[in-house]
Amino acid sequence: MSVPRVRIAGIGRHDGETVSIAGWLYNLRRSGKICFPLVRDGSGIIQCVAVKATLPEETFEALKNLTQESSLIVTGKVRAEARAQGGYELDVESVEILQRVSEESPYPITPKEHGIDFLMDHRHLWLRSRRQTAILRVRHEVIKAIRDYFDSNGFTLVDTPIFTPAACEGTTTLFEVDYFEDEKVYLTQSGQLYNEANAMALGRVYCFGPTFRAEKSKTRRHLTEFWMVEPEMAYAGLEDVKTLAEGLVVFCIGRVLENRREELAVLERDVSKLEAVKTPFPRMRYDDAVELLRRKGSEIQWGGDFGNTDETLLTEGSPQPILVDRFPTAIKAFYFQPDDENPKLAMGVDVIAPEGYGEIIGGGQRIHDPELLLRRLKEHDLPPEAFNWYLDLRRYGTVPHAGFGMGVERFVAWMCGTEHIRECIAYPRMLYRTRP
Amino acid sequence: MSVPRVRIAGIGRHDGETVSIAGWLYNLRRSGKICFPLVRDGSGIIQCVAVKATLPEETFEALKNLTQESSLIVTGKVRAEARAQGGYELDVESVEILQRVSEESPYPITPKEHGIDFLMDHRHLWLRSRRQTAILRVRHEVIKAIRDYFDSNGFTLVDTPIFTPAACEGTTTLFEVDYFEDEKVYLTQSGQLYNEANAMALGRVYCFGPTFRAEKSKTRRHLTEFWMVEPEMAYAGLEDVKTLAEGLVVFCIGRVLENRREELAVLERDVSKLEAVKTPFPRMRYDDAVELLRRKGSEIQWGGDFGNTDETLLTEGSPQPILVDRFPTAIKAFYFQPDDENPKLAMGVDVIAPEGYGEIIGGGQRIHDPELLLRRLKEHDLPPEAFNWYLDLRRYGTVPHAGFGMGVERFVAWMCGTEHIRECIAYPRMLYRTRP
Repeated sequence: MSVPRVRIAGIGRHDGETVSIAGWLYNLRRSGKICFPLVRDGSGIIQCVAVKATLPEETFEALKNLTQESSLIVTGKVRAEARAQGGYELDVESVEILQRVSEESPYPITPKEHGIDFLMDHRHLWLRSRRQTAILRVRHEVIKAIRDYFDSNGFTLVDTPIFTPAACEGTTTLFEVDYFEDEKVYLTQSGQLYNEANAMALGRVYCFGPTFRAEKSKTRRHLTEFWMVEPEMAYAGLEDVKTLAEGLVVFCIGRVLENRREELAVLERDVSKLEAVKTPFPRMRYDDAVELLRRKGSEIQWGGDFGNTDETLLTEGSPQPILVDRFPTAIKAFYFQPDDENPKLAMGVDVIAPEGYGEIIGGGQRIHDPELLLRRLKEHDLPPEAFNWYLDLRRYGTVPHAGFGMGVERFVAWMCGTEHIRECIAYPRMLYRTRP
Repeated sequence: MSVPRVRIAGIGRHDGETVSIAGWLYNLRRSGKICFPLVRDGSGIIQCVAVKATLPEETFEALKNLTQESSLIVTGKVRAEARAQGGYELDVESVEILQRVSEESPYPITPKEHGIDFLMDHRHLWLRSRRQTAILRVRHEVIKAIRDYFDSNGFTLVDTPIFTPAACEGTTTLFEVDYFEDEKVYLTQSGQLYNEANAMALGRVYCFGPTFRAEKSKTRRHLTEFWMVEPEMAYAGLEDVKTLAEGLVVFCIGRVLENRREELAVLERDVSKLEAVKTPFPRMRYDDAVELLRRKGSEIQWGGDFGNTDETLLTEGSPQPILVDRFPTAIKAFYFQPDDENPKLAMGVDVIAPEGYGEIIGGGQRIHDPELLLRRLKEHDLPPEAFNWYLDLRRYGTVPHAGFGMGVERFVAWMCGTEHIRECIAYPRMLYRTRP
């Protein structure tokens, strides 16, 4: 007898047929002569129905007493059941138990509440829980959407290096690596400088990889290792960045709403909040943002950077992310193009997500004039020799160009409605967390 | 007058219209009263035709004397021209020169031959050349194909961490990073161990990111930083790995042939070699491979690993990659499942590409028995405490599982027919190369 092995996610195509599913026992309800093993296989969860009268006694007993996370293959008939999550149940015909988890050393994560440190120590197992798999699937969807968006808009993926000789934004938050023979290299904080070179070669490019910040922050928005996508466009300016950024955001939200409704339901995400996001996003100058914040009671001064509270205040009442542009040059990195009308302002823009999720995108137009760039390097006490290759981009056919960076975990946190971004990556790395 | 700005790649849609293209001067031919600027914009290259009689004198003179890699916006009428590469030419109507590269300090990479060190020192500019952009576009296509293949086969992307506390395959080739307060972490060599945990949560997973090897090798196949895709499947064995691996290879080749013919032509790649690759790939046991090699004159002994020459000899005369399986356990990592019929053999498989491109995929079935895994850790002098979380996967619902890793740069090198993999990544990192 050859029974087809199917995945739970696609079991609806086998309604009325006998199939096998291979997975793990997620939970179990008993009721005398019948028991209901809830089986997960990574693609979904299905309730099985085992009736004592229709099964060999040892099969029923084994199932009835099975322990959480035991591995098993269940063969049975698929039956549409409107009340069941997913719409189907499986009427058990036979069971093969691969490993019964012992009672002496049971699966450590039980349905009761556990502390975050305990869960993080068991992250390799915690990922099996319904909430965590839901977050990982949303993350997968977001990453796929990001790539599809750029790929279908004429961008070429060019991976920028992880090992870099120089710092992009200050040297205090760099991780140092021992390379060969006493050479030191640093882990990338951003692919932007390389992106600029790549944009001069390919017009529109993006990089998408892990980036690193040795920040001693212990906030719910910080990881030492996080994934970032960074597009860069030649012959482009600040307005192009705004259009591209808001296009990306709504495209990703659309995909998540289209394909991950079930996961959002598991996460109890209020999807109306995501459905409300529409372009164009409100635009605001930094000057006006500061004024608005002060009216709302913030103590921010002109020239200061927004704190988390400021970001939350700014989007208060707005279902949309807000684009804030033209920040003071003094608080922005050396490479920002100054505003023609007021050189004290940088042609940069931040996209601030609603619901308190804060800055998800930062970018702007880069300096393309070689003299100005050299002056800025000196003003920022950066060694021009280290940036000689970067200056080359302004010597050989310089053009206005612009781009941005978007942190994946922050975006996923917003989609999922999670409070802390540590759940939005499989193995978060933080100040005091490098295991498992 | 509002002239549409278009990209060269899509210029065919504007045949007969007046458009603008924004790019750089790639090359220039002159012939008295007419000159032919070759303009690139990152999406493609087009020949422009500037006729002295139809242009203001200063425009024609400026164009005629323009230097390589100067940035310019050309406005003109698109004209189908069968003899032109790409099928179109642009009849120049006006020109805006953004930056004329000075004669005193000309663009360093000229059409003449340059040494590899010079080119690598100027990698940020070298990427603008036709051959390099072609390779980067093939790389983009390969990466997109890999992701699409897994995404459409029920795999969930789960990024594994870059910072890892322990080594996967030996400790001598690890890069050490100073974490906070004298803690040391290491850069990942493979996401496999984490993949195994993730496969138990999601059934089918893959990770795809940069990996690091502190190998002092200076061969044409080694980088210290390279990208690797690694799928892992629960409830799977060696045969599933073979099927998945050959499926991936033909899918990626298909996409490259479908979408990157032009690039392969620039690279002068013999596409008939790629067109010949069809599943199923020939399968061979290690035992038989060793015998075959010895017959062909190799000095390999049973128990030895294949060298580059051996890999080339093995595929000699075969248009297909070859799958070699059941290697001696002694030369394989601790986690390989032994063959039931002969425990001295590991259930591993290598995919060896033809034309001398060597091993592109390595993988197999992992040990799922907790006692055997513990024994192997001890035999390999690995501290069981460090692997306690990994052992957990065998304590809580262990199942047979399998997966593999494929190095992106090696695969791209094969597609492009490049001799050295250093051209197959934008900014290669090698023993003596960490810049720019």
